[in-house]
Amino acid sequence: MARKRRKHREQVFSRRSLPGSAPGTLIVDPEAPRTKIHVIAYGAENMAESDVTDAASVRGFLESWPVVWVRVSGLGDLAAITQLGEIFGLHRLALEDVINVHQRSKVEQYRDYSYIVVRAVNDADGISSEQVSIFLGKSYVISFHESDPGCFDPVAQRIREGKGLLRGSGPSHLAYSLIDACIDRFFPVVERYGDQLETLEDAIIAQPGASMVDRIHETKGRLMTLRRISWPMRDAMMVLYRDPILWVNDEERIYLRDCYDHMVQINDLLESYRDISAGLMEVYLSSLGNRTNEIMKVLTILSAVFIPLTLISGVYGMNFEGAVPAFDWRGGFFFALGLMVAVAVAMLLYFRRKGWWGGEGASKGNR
Amino acid sequence: MARKRRKHREQVFSRRSLPGSAPGTLIVDPEAPRTKIHVIAYGAENMAESDVTDAASVRGFLESWPVVWVRVSGLGDLAAITQLGEIFGLHRLALEDVINVHQRSKVEQYRDYSYIVVRAVNDADGISSEQVSIFLGKSYVISFHESDPGCFDPVAQRIREGKGLLRGSGPSHLAYSLIDACIDRFFPVVERYGDQLETLEDAIIAQPGASMVDRIHETKGRLMTLRRISWPMRDAMMVLYRDPILWVNDEERIYLRDCYDHMVQINDLLESYRDISAGLMEVYLSSLGNRTNEIMKVLTILSAVFIPLTLISGVYGMNFEGAVPAFDWRGGFFFALGLMVAVAVAMLLYFRRKGWWGGEGASKGNR
Amino acid sequence: MARKRRKHREQVFSRRSLPGSAPGTLIVDPEAPRTKIHVIAYGAENMAESDVTDAASVRGFLESWPVVWVRVSGLGDLAAITQLGEIFGLHRLALEDVINVHQRSKVEQYRDYSYIVVRAVNDADGISSEQVSIFLGKSYVISFHESDPGCFDPVAQRIREGKGLLRGSGPSHLAYSLIDACIDRFFPVVERYGDQLETLEDAIIAQPGASMVDRIHETKGRLMTLRRISWPMRDAMMVLYRDPILWVNDEERIYLRDCYDHMVQINDLLESYRDISAGLMEVYLSSLGNRTNEIMKVLTILSAVFIPLTLISGVYGMNFEGAVPAFDWRGGFFFALGLMVAVAVAMLLYFRRKGWWGGEGASKGNR
Amino acid sequence: MARKRRKHREQVFSRRSLPGSAPGTLIVDPEAPRTKIHVIAYGAENMAESDVTDAASVRGFLESWPVVWVRVSGLGDLAAITQLGEIFGLHRLALEDVINVHQRSKVEQYRDYSYIVVRAVNDADGISSEQVSIFLGKSYVISFHESDPGCFDPVAQRIREGKGLLRGSGPSHLAYSLIDACIDRFFPVVERYGDQLETLEDAIIAQPGASMVDRIHETKGRLMTLRRISWPMRDAMMVLYRDPILWVNDEERIYLRDCYDHMVQINDLLESYRDISAGLMEVYLSSLGNRTNEIMKVLTILSAVFIPLTLISGVYGMNFEGAVPAFDWRGGFFFALGLMVAVAVAMLLYFRRKGWWGGEGASKGNR
Amino acid sequence: MARKRRKHREQVFSRRSLPGSAPGTLIVDPEAPRTKIHVIAYGAENMAESDVTDAASVRGFLESWPVVWVRVSGLGDLAAITQLGEIFGLHRLALEDVINVHQRSKVEQYRDYSYIVVRAVNDADGISSEQVSIFLGKSYVISFHESDPGCFDPVAQRIREGKGLLRGSGPSHLAYSLIDACIDRFFPVVERYGDQLETLEDAIIAQPGASMVDRIHETKGRLMTLRRISWPMRDAMMVLYRDPILWVNDEERIYLRDCYDHMVQINDLLESYRDISAGLMEVYLSSLGNRTNEIMKVLTILSAVFIPLTLISGVYGMNFEGAVPAFDWRGGFFFALGLMVAVAVAMLLYFRRKGWWGGEGASKGNR
Repeated sequence: MARKRRKHREQVFSRRSLPGSAPGTLIVDPEAPRTKIHVIAYGAENMAESDVTDAASVRGFLESWPVVWVRVSGLGDLAAITQLGEIFGLHRLALEDVINVHQRSKVEQYRDYSYIVVRAVNDADGISSEQVSIFLGKSYVISFHESDPGCFDPVAQRIREGKGLLRGSGPSHLAYSLIDACIDRFFPVVERYGDQLETLEDAIIAQPGASMVDRIHETKGRLMTLRRISWPMRDAMMVLYRDPILWVNDEERIYLRDCYDHMVQINDLLESYRDISAGLMEVYLSSLGNRTNEIMKVLTILSAVFIPLTLISGVYGMNFEGAVPAFDWRGGFFFALGLMVAVAVAMLLYFRRKGWWGGEGASKGNR
Repeated sequence: MARKRRKHREQVFSRRSLPGSAPGTLIVDPEAPRTKIHVIAYGAENMAESDVTDAASVRGFLESWPVVWVRVSGLGDLAAITQLGEIFGLHRLALEDVINVHQRSKVEQYRDYSYIVVRAVNDADGISSEQVSIFLGKSYVISFHESDPGCFDPVAQRIREGKGLLRGSGPSHLAYSLIDACIDRFFPVVERYGDQLETLEDAIIAQPGASMVDRIHETKGRLMTLRRISWPMRDAMMVLYRDPILWVNDEERIYLRDCYDHMVQINDLLESYRDISAGLMEVYLSSLGNRTNEIMKVLTILSAVFIPLTLISGVYGMNFEGAVPAFDWRGGFFFALGLMVAVAVAMLLYFRRKGWWGGEGASKGNR
Repeated sequence: MARKRRKHREQVFSRRSLPGSAPGTLIVDPEAPRTKIHVIAYGAENMAESDVTDAASVRGFLESWPVVWVRVSGLGDLAAITQLGEIFGLHRLALEDVINVHQRSKVEQYRDYSYIVVRAVNDADGISSEQVSIFLGKSYVISFHESDPGCFDPVAQRIREGKGLLRGSGPSHLAYSLIDACIDRFFPVVERYGDQLETLEDAIIAQPGASMVDRIHETKGRLMTLRRISWPMRDAMMVLYRDPILWVNDEERIYLRDCYDHMVQINDLLESYRDISAGLMEVYLSSLGNRTNEIMKVLTILSAVFIPLTLISGVYGMNFEGAVPAFDWRGGFFFALGLMVAVAVAMLLYFRRKGWWGGEGASKGNR
Repeated sequence: MARKRRKHREQVFSRRSLPGSAPGTLIVDPEAPRTKIHVIAYGAENMAESDVTDAASVRGFLESWPVVWVRVSGLGDLAAITQLGEIFGLHRLALEDVINVHQRSKVEQYRDYSYIVVRAVNDADGISSEQVSIFLGKSYVISFHESDPGCFDPVAQRIREGKGLLRGSGPSHLAYSLIDACIDRFFPVVERYGDQLETLEDAIIAQPGASMVDRIHETKGRLMTLRRISWPMRDAMMVLYRDPILWVNDEERIYLRDCYDHMVQINDLLESYRDISAGLMEVYLSSLGNRTNEIMKVLTILSAVFIPLTLISGVYGMNFEGAVPAFDWRGGFFFALGLMVAVAVAMLLYFRRKGWWGGEGASKGNR
Repeated sequence: MARKRRKHREQVFSRRSLPGSAPGTLIVDPEAPRTKIHVIAYGAENMAESDVTDAASVRGFLESWPVVWVRVSGLGDLAAITQLGEIFGLHRLALEDVINVHQRSKVEQYRDYSYIVVRAVNDADGISSEQVSIFLGKSYVISFHESDPGCFDPVAQRIREGKGLLRGSGPSHLAYSLIDACIDRFFPVVERYGDQLETLEDAIIAQPGASMVDRIHETKGRLMTLRRISWPMRDAMMVLYRDPILWVNDEERIYLRDCYDHMVQINDLLESYRDISAGLMEVYLSSLGNRTNEIMKVLTILSAVFIPLTLISGVYGMNFEGAVPAFDWRGGFFFALGLMVAVAVAMLLYFRRKGWWGGEGASKGNR
């Protein structure tokens, strides 16, 4: 997990070559995948789509179609991204945020378009997420995705098939569909997380051991990561739904309210997971204390029973000569043993009455 | 409880067949009970009611009565629900929320109606709740209930008998009565919860044992579930009472303020329960510490008393020959025993003065 | 305390005979004291007062006096209360709150009057409070008090004597005086609570014992009860002073600001008590830890000193025959004893240097 | 400290002779110092000042000077204070607050003047504070100080010398100067507190002992007192700077913003002290746990090493006759001793490898 | 670290020679470095720059250039700073804040200019920061830096080279660039802090020891310092971006939003670090508890195994004469040894079944 976090941070902070360099200087992560541009243009009646190698050819679509979706995947090709920025008049600061792929979810309004950043969590083992940047203009949507935007395929398919409301609506409904697709990615991840938490909870209650601490700690770390992704996203959704956003009308707003609603639900669940994991630590610590107590009880009982017996044997081992009682009896030895047994039984009875030790019944009553 | 939670979550997340499918796609839970539609139509003077098998026949009521209450129970019949949606012009996103029965309480305004989601807690052993969806239109109220809406029977009865204000008021008073009926369900559940908490509190103070941790943990989990149901409900009630809601006038608003008031009272009580249960863990942990201390004291006293005695017996057991003091005396043995008793008594007196051990009086003073 | 809380809750929840019954159905607590109505009517010049058996006779006062104070004590007589409600046009929901005597403090505005609920704490041993409902109309004030409203006697006396501003002011000043009288009840209770907390604090620092946990727990419970009474009251006072309230003018508002001020002061004090009592648990737990440590130290020192001595005595007790060093010496016994003393002294010196045990000086330095 | 707090509370609560007495009844604390009135009147050109025995003579100043500062110290003389109240038309509730010297800092607006309460902390050993009441009118400032207002002397001196902006400005600048003088009192107190906290921090890290708990507790108590003084003061400063205050213009507002700024700084520092002192308890508790661990380790090692040796000596002490191995050898005794040494060394090596005990190097590595 | 904090505080509090002296009295820290003034003046076409010894010569630049940047480093020369204040009409309170270099970040509006305070963290070992004061006027920016403002060099360089937007924009873009340069200083510091935290985290999980407490404490202290710098800075950035600020137009506001965004990101990261470090203490404490448990287990097992054996040897060491069983057998000795081994093995098997001790497999299962 430490590895994950470090990677995260380094990318955040390596955003510019030198502190003090001009803001808006675009510097591409050398490990970013190659940029692919796919254009889907559609109207109520028909649609067209093609892969584009020269960003300039996007202009053609813009002129002839009511809605153009420029779908960019991979952020490795600075020239193409800059060219798109020029064609659509995107602000350099916005482009900088597109390339620096660890922004928090947010909504920013520029003069001609709205810039929306959301994060799509990956359904992999640890918790990680990819940044999705969406520009919503009057007649276009541009989406930037770190790597292959598989989660947008169903949206593209729905445009192709003309099903749902997409074909008959403007670009804001397309933007909504993309955001909704990203939010949908949360559900299986949160679900799997909840399963892990429950498994851990059962394990701690059943058999608490030292390795639990690491697991609780790791679980908490994951939850923290999830919350850091989902809270800003919830806030961004609230802005989208409550504030006046460019190119979003009242009808569309109902859909964005639904997005907000889903994020509220996710955050709600994450908060309850947080309460659960905080409780787990408490349960663990108190079971640790119980275990200490139990060991101490065994130790105390052992000492209490055997130490007096040892004393008795010591007394009979003293070197005296002459008529010490019980020494010259034949039965002296058995008398000593009997004394020992009597003392031991008395001790055990005493502890049993105090509830420290006992048969099954007493033990149950005590715990 | 773990079982409860899992069930909960799965239903929340299985809302769509495939991530990426069109929003507003209605998918019915295959285990949902069959849909029954009951219509109650009334005016100030008279009323009519009937079970409806074909949703279309609701139209007839709408035309001839001032207020129509469409009471839907069981969400298993997609066709009927969709048909109702068409008749009343309900938004697909709202219908989607009706079917996915784990929404938080909320109030959403659409153009022609308000959509209200509240949750009715079940008076069963664990804490669970059912979703009640209410559409409030100009001349109708549609209520959707997961299973049999028993808690609405008294409202129906009041309409039949013409008692109270219901018959003379519009649909908003009906909606209020339904919400109020759901809120009423909280009171016995919270009451029973409070009783359990008090029993637990008394048990912990009287006799803290290891099993208490599980019980505190479980109690906290239930409280968390209750709070997760009641807080959104309180917020929804505040929206209902403070914000301008479609088809709710000022007179009606006084009643909704009363609903809000009750939810505030419930949440207030739950918060104080939360403080109590947080305190319980503290009490438990400190009593655990006290118990450890007590065991340690017994161990220490035992060791302190017997170890020196054992040493004395050891000393007299050493093998020397000749005129070691007290060895050749007849009374040597009794001298040794006397020495032991003297040491033991001195130790016990010392511990008693330090307050570690003692008669009843000292013990009371110490604890 | 558990008893107190239960009683509290039951009354809250038994507000209606059956869940689902019509809201505003008035059901009187069968144990409530008999209702007594006392009317005080006054103007700047003169005043009149009388006990009233028939609520209808209040109308006479209303017509002939500028200010009428209807002082109702005991809520057992439903008919009288309902009749008053009809005479003054009080809303059924407000009357319901009057009778269900465990409302939180609040201010509600109706068309012709303001409805104010405050709570008067009782200066008894536990923390309990009574509900005082005040209706403030254009020319009247109606006060409902659970039992005998002794705390209003000084206000009545001031009206009789014509001292202060009461006689020359309108009903809002009377309402203010009543609220102020209720707030005054808080001061001795909070004062006594503070004294108890200080006593407990001193006790814990002086001599922490197991019984302290119960006392801290009980003290926290009382504080929680006090805070649950005082916080809503503070909020209600803020509403009274900040929001436009019916029949309260700017001049009167200055007085209400004073009420708010006092509640802020009380809550401020309660918050600081909360911090203190949270700190007490910490002090207690750490003193528990210290005590464990101290016992462990004694045990360790004892074992460390005596176990080697026992070994020495054991070694000299081994059964060998022949020329084992120091065995056939006469002084062998004394050599053995000397060896033991030397080992013991060495151990004690070592522990003293480590600061675990020592003379008064070292001990002080260590703690 | 307990003594301090009690005194505090009693004065707060003894504000009126009897609960229920008319609000605004002025009752002077019989122990309050005698009232002295000093008047400083000034304009841009010249100034005059004199001690005043008859409050009525203040009127003369008011008529002939642009700005009159009535400086009242000691609140023991009810007549003088009441007379001042009449001359300047001060509200009885405000005068009540002047006399009850434990108000929180606040700003209250009356029709003709603003009433400002600030608190001046004393640079004495514990944390205590005095109430300063300031009335700001169109052409006058009245300041009430519990005892000798030494902290206002520099302000008076600046008026006399005509330095700074005071002489050329109106009464609001004078009020600002007085408030600023009170705020200045905070700085050395907070500084000294910070020094104490650091000393304590160093002590805990160096050598944690049982007495630390009391010191942490006391330090937290002081901090709490400081915060209770400074937070309301910060709020009052914000009101002064943000809200429209009578007789304060925009130019003056810049100065009040500076006051607010200083209070923010002080509260900021106090909050960070709070974090530090919370951390101290954690450090103390964990060092307590470490100490327990260390003692337990010594105990365990001792037992582990000596108990087997004692067993060996016991075995050789058994009374058998005949050819038991090593019994009739001459070297038997040395064989036994060698066996003991071997077992002891083996145990110690084992513990050293486990990191429980060892040379300096291992010990360092372990901690 | 204690040293750092103390220094910090003293400078904050030594702001005036005497409490009560006139506000706005400028008193220079005698240890402050000498003041150097560097002027950079530029327009879209050309630029000029020079070191200035006489502050008065700044006037020349002001008259002939569209944008003048007065870059002051070192705050030791009161005369020069005062002279600058007169030339630009800076308020004395603002100048006081410039000189007292421990202000929180803030934005203050004066009539003709905005006064912005930000802090630049130093990339040194501990966490420290320098105050940067920026005055933004209609045609000028004045920056005050405690010591050498190296972080502004890249900005100056960009002006010289005419790269980026600086030359073509007004003074507000320059102010933005300076603020951005200060914010850039945060990134490496936060990054290094994160690395340290991760190292500590790994160390605690791998091998928790007593020295960890100090390191956690120190780490928390640093984080607290960082947060105290970054939170006010975030707030100031929000004011800059949201509120109407003098001389900042809408176009420029987009850039300031970017600054705010970066501060949000930094604070976000610091908050997650705070959660991590809070978790570390928990992990440490529970590992401490585990360790105690483990030591106790060894102690208990040892006692449990050896104490009975010692008793057996003691029994055989008793001095009886005659036909005690197994005493006169030759094999008696071996019988006794065998008995001991049998008891020891039985004990160990019992503990192994209880999971307290065992082979690798059982041990793994237990932890």
